[in-house]
Amino acid sequence: MSLPLVTLLTDFGHSDVYVGVMKGVMLTLNPQVQFVDLSHQVPPQDCRTASFQLVQALPYFPPETVHLVVVDPGVGTSRRAIALKLAQGYCVGPDNGVFSHVLQHYPVEAVVELNRPQFWHQQTPSATFHGRDMFAPVAAHLTAGVPLATLGSALDPSRLVRLPQLDYRLTVEGVQGWVQAIDHFGNVITTLPAALLQGRQGIVEIADQRLSVVKTYGDRPLGTCIALVGSHGFIEVAVTGGSAQHHLGCRNGDPVWLR
Amino acid sequence: MSLPLVTLLTDFGHSDVYVGVMKGVMLTLNPQVQFVDLSHQVPPQDCRTASFQLVQALPYFPPETVHLVVVDPGVGTSRRAIALKLAQGYCVGPDNGVFSHVLQHYPVEAVVELNRPQFWHQQTPSATFHGRDMFAPVAAHLTAGVPLATLGSALDPSRLVRLPQLDYRLTVEGVQGWVQAIDHFGNVITTLPAALLQGRQGIVEIADQRLSVVKTYGDRPLGTCIALVGSHGFIEVAVTGGSAQHHLGCRNGDPVWLR
Amino acid sequence: MSLPLVTLLTDFGHSDVYVGVMKGVMLTLNPQVQFVDLSHQVPPQDCRTASFQLVQALPYFPPETVHLVVVDPGVGTSRRAIALKLAQGYCVGPDNGVFSHVLQHYPVEAVVELNRPQFWHQQTPSATFHGRDMFAPVAAHLTAGVPLATLGSALDPSRLVRLPQLDYRLTVEGVQGWVQAIDHFGNVITTLPAALLQGRQGIVEIADQRLSVVKTYGDRPLGTCIALVGSHGFIEVAVTGGSAQHHLGCRNGDPVWLR
Repeated sequence: MSLPLVTLLTDFGHSDVYVGVMKGVMLTLNPQVQFVDLSHQVPPQDCRTASFQLVQALPYFPPETVHLVVVDPGVGTSRRAIALKLAQGYCVGPDNGVFSHVLQHYPVEAVVELNRPQFWHQQTPSATFHGRDMFAPVAAHLTAGVPLATLGSALDPSRLVRLPQLDYRLTVEGVQGWVQAIDHFGNVITTLPAALLQGRQGIVEIADQRLSVVKTYGDRPLGTCIALVGSHGFIEVAVTGGSAQHHLGCRNGDPVWLR
Repeated sequence: MSLPLVTLLTDFGHSDVYVGVMKGVMLTLNPQVQFVDLSHQVPPQDCRTASFQLVQALPYFPPETVHLVVVDPGVGTSRRAIALKLAQGYCVGPDNGVFSHVLQHYPVEAVVELNRPQFWHQQTPSATFHGRDMFAPVAAHLTAGVPLATLGSALDPSRLVRLPQLDYRLTVEGVQGWVQAIDHFGNVITTLPAALLQGRQGIVEIADQRLSVVKTYGDRPLGTCIALVGSHGFIEVAVTGGSAQHHLGCRNGDPVWLR
Repeated sequence: MSLPLVTLLTDFGHSDVYVGVMKGVMLTLNPQVQFVDLSHQVPPQDCRTASFQLVQALPYFPPETVHLVVVDPGVGTSRRAIALKLAQGYCVGPDNGVFSHVLQHYPVEAVVELNRPQFWHQQTPSATFHGRDMFAPVAAHLTAGVPLATLGSALDPSRLVRLPQLDYRLTVEGVQGWVQAIDHFGNVITTLPAALLQGRQGIVEIADQRLSVVKTYGDRPLGTCIALVGSHGFIEVAVTGGSAQHHLGCRNGDPVWLR
C-alpha cells in the first residue's frame, strides 16, 4: 500500500514556519499524507527557476504524486489559482508560469481554476498566504481522492500562463543557448540538450572559454573546467573539485555556444 | 487512521546532525512517528522568536500533535524541563519562555515537570543536549500513548516562565506597537492585531513613513511600500516584489504607530 | 509495525531539487519508505566531515535503518560504490572515506561492491549523479528486503578506503588532539574523548587559552569560554551564549592539548 504523497516547492526559505503550517493544514485534512520537500530556496518570486526545478523532479516521482508549488508574487491579485492533471501526477499552484516547463514537456489531461471556496482552509482566504489557505487544502483533497473536476471549473490548457521559452537556436555559426540554472556546486546548466551532440564531440564556448564536451568529471586534474552532459540531460559546465560559476563569473541568462 | 505526529522547532540550523539524531531517538521509541519541521533556524538562543513561531503554527495542526521546542540557552542549569497539554496539542521543551505566546493564547489543561529519568534516553542526560536525551524521548512517549501525568510531577501553570509581553498600548496619539518579527521575504510583522482596525482604514507610521492599510499586495506597482493585515492576523509592512526590512531599515523591537 | 527508514547525508545543499529527486526514486521503488535528513550541508566534497557526522548519528537509529551518504567528489571515476551491513544498520555510498569513522567504531558484517546494474535506476547511470541513479535505488531495495549479497559482489572490508585518522597522541607534555568539527553554535569539538579525563579535572589548551574542564554550560556568566564533555563524548570548547569559534578564531585541524 502506498501512502499519499505531496511534494513542496516554494520560495519560503527555512527561517519561518510557513512551510510547516502548510503541512499542518494538509495533515489535518488527510493524516496519511507524506511530504517530500523539493526546495524552499527558490529565489524570492522567481517563477522561472521554480518551473525548471519542478520539471527536473517530476519524472522521478510516482504518478499519483501531488506537486504543490507556491512561488506567488501575484498573491492577492487577479492571477488564477489552478490544479492540473498529467499522466505523471498532479500540480497545484498559481497560474503565473511556474508550470511552464511541465506544460512544455508533458501533455495535460485536465486543468481547473480553483474557484470553489468550500475546498479551502478559510472560505475567504488571507490576502497574502494562499499557500496555506487555498493550495495546501486543495492538494490534500486530491490526495484524499477528491476528483480534480470537483475542485474548480474546467479551463482550457492553452489559456495557461507560460513564460517565454529560454531555449536554443540554430545559426550558421553553431547552436546558441543560454545559462538556465546554476546549482549549489556552481555547475552551470545550459539550455542545450544532450541530443544536440548526436554522438559527435562538441565544443562549448562560454565566457571566452572553449571547452570540449567530455564524458565525466572523473580522472581530470582538480580545478579543470569541463563541459559534459549533466544528470538532467542538458550540457553543463563544471570545474572538478570547484565552482564553474566562480571560475567563469557567469550568471543565469548568459549566452553559450555549441560549435 | 492517523499516524502520530511531532513538530520540531529549534535553533540547531541545518549543518549538524542534531535534528536527525532527535528524530532517530524518537523513531527508536515509536517507529510510527511522523515529523514536521517548523524551523531549525530560530536565531541561536532566541526564545522570543521561538515562542512567536510556535503560536503561529500551532492552530494549523491536528489536536493530538506533539510540539517539540528546543531553544535552550539554559541547558545544564537549574531551568525546568516541562511538558504541557492544551486542547490543541502537547508541547515539550525547556521552561524558559519559549511557550509564552502559547500560554497567553491557549488554556493549559495540565503541566508536568520532567523529572522521571526512566522516560529519558540516558538516565543521566548529557550536560549539553537535553533535546536528544530528555525532550525527544518524552515527545515519543507521548505519541505512544504514555499519559502526561506519568512523565513527571504536576506543576502549577501559573509558575511557568513567561517572557515580558511585547504587545501594544493605547495612547492619546494612537496605538503604539512594535516590530515582533521579520520574515524571509523581509515582511515586517508588528504586534498590532487586525482587530484594532475595526473595519476603518488605519494609517501606519514606521521609520518615518506613513502608510495606509490596504487589502492586498496586489495590483500595486513593484517596489511600493504598503501596510496590510498579514496571514497571522497582525498588521504587517511589505514592499511589493521587494523587502520592507531593507526599504525601511528596521529591526525587531522597533516602534510602530497606528493612527 | 515499523516503516522502513532511510537517512540521508549529502553535500547537496537545499537550493536544488537533487535531494528530493533521490527521495522520489526511492518512493517509486518502495512507497513505504520514511526519510530522516541528517544534513545536506556537508561542505562540498568534504568526506571527513561526512564521516564524522554519520558516526555521530548512527547509534541513535533503529538497527534496520539504511544510511545513504552521497558526498562523492569522485563520481564518474573508478572509485567503488559500496553497501555495507553493520549490527547497527546498513550504509550505502561511495567508497571514498565517508565511512571511515563507522568502520573504526563498528564491526562490519558484510560489504558488497555495487556492480549489478539491474538494481539501478538506469542501467547506465549518468556520469554525475550516482546518488539518483545507483545509491538511492540500492537503498530502496535494501528497505524492501533485497539481501545485501544480491546487490553486488562481496568485498573484503579491509580493502575499503579509510581516511587517515585524526585522533590524539600521548606525549610527555600531555595529550595532543585536534579540532575535528565546529558546529552551528560555534562549539569547537576536539578529537579528545571524554575517557581521557578518567574522572580527574583536566586543563585544555587551545589558541593560547587555558581552560578547566567543567561539567556544564550552566551557571557561568554569559561570554565565558569553557571546556566540557560534549553530547558526542568528546571534549569540546564553548562560549556560554556565544561562539567559541569566533572567540578563539580556530578552525578544523587546529591543535589542542589536554594537560
